[in-house]
Amino acid sequence: MSLIVQKYGGSSVADATSIKRVARRIVDTKKAGHQVVVVVSAMGDSTDELMDLAQQVSPLPPARELDMLLTAGERISMALLAMAISDLGAVSRSYTGSQAGLITDSAHGAARIIDVTPGRITDALDKGAIPIVAGFQGVAQDTKDITTLGRGGSDTTAVALAAALNADACEIYTDVDGVFTTDPRVVSRASKVDYITYEEMLELAAVGAKVLHLRCVEYARRFGVPIHVRSSFSQAEGTWVLSPEGVQAAVAEGKIMEQPIISGVAADLKDAKVTVVGVPDRPGEAAGIFRALADAQINVDMIVQNISSTATGRTDVTFTCPQDSVHKAMAALNDAQGSIDFESLIVDDQVAKISLVGAGMRSHPGVSADFFTSLADAGVNVEMIATSEIRISIVTRAESAQTAVQAIHTAFGLDADGEAVVYAGTGR
Amino acid sequence: MSLIVQKYGGSSVADATSIKRVARRIVDTKKAGHQVVVVVSAMGDSTDELMDLAQQVSPLPPARELDMLLTAGERISMALLAMAISDLGAVSRSYTGSQAGLITDSAHGAARIIDVTPGRITDALDKGAIPIVAGFQGVAQDTKDITTLGRGGSDTTAVALAAALNADACEIYTDVDGVFTTDPRVVSRASKVDYITYEEMLELAAVGAKVLHLRCVEYARRFGVPIHVRSSFSQAEGTWVLSPEGVQAAVAEGKIMEQPIISGVAADLKDAKVTVVGVPDRPGEAAGIFRALADAQINVDMIVQNISSTATGRTDVTFTCPQDSVHKAMAALNDAQGSIDFESLIVDDQVAKISLVGAGMRSHPGVSADFFTSLADAGVNVEMIATSEIRISIVTRAESAQTAVQAIHTAFGLDADGEAVVYAGTGR
Repeated sequence: MSLIVQKYGGSSVADATSIKRVARRIVDTKKAGHQVVVVVSAMGDSTDELMDLAQQVSPLPPARELDMLLTAGERISMALLAMAISDLGAVSRSYTGSQAGLITDSAHGAARIIDVTPGRITDALDKGAIPIVAGFQGVAQDTKDITTLGRGGSDTTAVALAAALNADACEIYTDVDGVFTTDPRVVSRASKVDYITYEEMLELAAVGAKVLHLRCVEYARRFGVPIHVRSSFSQAEGTWVLSPEGVQAAVAEGKIMEQPIISGVAADLKDAKVTVVGVPDRPGEAAGIFRALADAQINVDMIVQNISSTATGRTDVTFTCPQDSVHKAMAALNDAQGSIDFESLIVDDQVAKISLVGAGMRSHPGVSADFFTSLADAGVNVEMIATSEIRISIVTRAESAQTAVQAIHTAFGLDADGEAVVYAGTGR
Repeated sequence: MSLIVQKYGGSSVADATSIKRVARRIVDTKKAGHQVVVVVSAMGDSTDELMDLAQQVSPLPPARELDMLLTAGERISMALLAMAISDLGAVSRSYTGSQAGLITDSAHGAARIIDVTPGRITDALDKGAIPIVAGFQGVAQDTKDITTLGRGGSDTTAVALAAALNADACEIYTDVDGVFTTDPRVVSRASKVDYITYEEMLELAAVGAKVLHLRCVEYARRFGVPIHVRSSFSQAEGTWVLSPEGVQAAVAEGKIMEQPIISGVAADLKDAKVTVVGVPDRPGEAAGIFRALADAQINVDMIVQNISSTATGRTDVTFTCPQDSVHKAMAALNDAQGSIDFESLIVDDQVAKISLVGAGMRSHPGVSADFFTSLADAGVNVEMIATSEIRISIVTRAESAQTAVQAIHTAFGLDADGEAVVYAGTGR
């Protein structure tokens, strides 16, 4: 008998009909001989509706109270799901994050899990019940106040519980069939990958793939939790996210085919490119720029520095950061202009970052050449380049994004035979 | 500096505008130099909406899960109220029943408070914050599961907290100006009473007055908590519910005028009259009937046994019970027909119970005579009579209810000079 943690997102429990469908799936898993622990998000748009209510009473609500308010959403969905399961004749009990032992720090709205003490969950399992746990929430160790984990919080709850319970798998249910070689909404012949390593998944999440959140994958890698990303609308196998050793074992057991060189292509349209013009070309100048940005909590991604003009002794430094941080970045740099020297700032938010990710790159030296050749053949202009051991990223014009992704996808033989199925819903 | 517990019902926090209005009132109380603890119900109809959702997923949801679901309602209203107060520049923090130390038994849906340990509430008060506590809910001492207190639960939460905090007063905000001599919706010249004893309030609550729930008044009497029932729509003084000693002290201090003989007239249309026909007139037969009803958890109110017919040696026993218990009562009696002997059952749900309540009755022997004279003069037929030390109740036809109440109200000089103001809303 194996222990499986299943996580269902808001679109999977949007209304009574969906909740009953999910309940049936959970009971079927239990009947197939598994122990099941379920993590659930708030119903459909209910979190947005609660946010609207908060805005109506206060333009800047205190973070503690906002967490108290928003956690009502999972309380509703989890109780309804437990009822629907009971209605099918199984025993089910719902637990808040606090009751399930999700202990966090007290950073309201973006709390980090610091411990998981799932005593009540194991008790429920021992009694043959199906525990339903509220995703996205926990309780602060010091203040005992209710906290929320922020973006991707329910996925992280599921992985953290799976780690604490030493579960055999953590199934993340979504509205697509798994992890695709690229966004099926952009490239219709995107193909589902059968498995991917944590490392590759982290690179994909970092460059804009939205299936799994960075934090959840980091947590899974740290504790070696096997993740199975799959659709709640079908019974098909999805994508396994595993350690390299887990992949080797699965290949050896014949469960999956051998790993391809490339696992995915991603486009990220949410970054902006900022150029700091006329920086004196001497030691310490660039450091001053990035110290000022770090102090303002700006996540800088790619950085390029041109060679300096011998006439002026000055150079240009270009970096990318999230578009919604651009105002803060400019303010930070302008404030620091007394201590760091530059002539002007140029902001460009009509850019796309295109990334190719694959652990096979390490041992296949031709990948970079093929990558740039395919872009050149498609007429895509490359403005910035950055590489890691298992990723190549470039920045180009936003309007070239789709052309670039399609060209790379085809060049690396990733196109599927048929079109990918995209289900309705947000996939949150 | 006095400590005041304020309780606001669902109609007082039905939407963002109402929540802001209540927040202003709370902050004004704090600014007037008082410490304030607030107890709040769920917004308007939100509890009904959650019940609807539950019905959609399960016709008979488990009580534990129903409590988990319904308690989301107060979580939302309390967080929003804390936000609205913060928006006015005061510090406020919301607490669930569990966080506020409302410890109950594990009778889901109708849990009883067995202890109140408000450590976090006193901490918040010590720090100058305004604590907002979820009404209607607690946590079970043995299972640690979330419970609800059932009808009148938020009032009971407020009184229990006031007792545990040794508060100077417990203000219950509603949509009427206080306790009236009769229902102002029925008799337009009903007058507000300035004060009433716990004993009288209990009698009034028991006979159908809906302002305060029986359990809340019982709790207040046991711990001597002064209750102030008042309108959240006006600044007028409402009705104080006090101990007889509290009344004497208030009269001595000139705060209130001396007590009238009669404090109220109530009509209850929710009872049914059941006659058990042809019961053998020998010892133990009536006992058998009421044992069977008690075993079926039927709350029997008035009981009348006629003298027996000498020809048959049989008599009729008539009792009243809530209309919604009639089916259960008939089933219990029919099931017991082997061990108890009777010929047939007659059910009549077109009845009204009319009650006159007043502590002054004890020392004024003419009250009964005046009562029956006024009913006779108004042509109201009396079918059953029951009395306690401070109450007289009769059963009559349902269609005579308004005539009866008006006649008694006038006969005892309770009619106000002007018409009572009735506000919109449910007063829940």
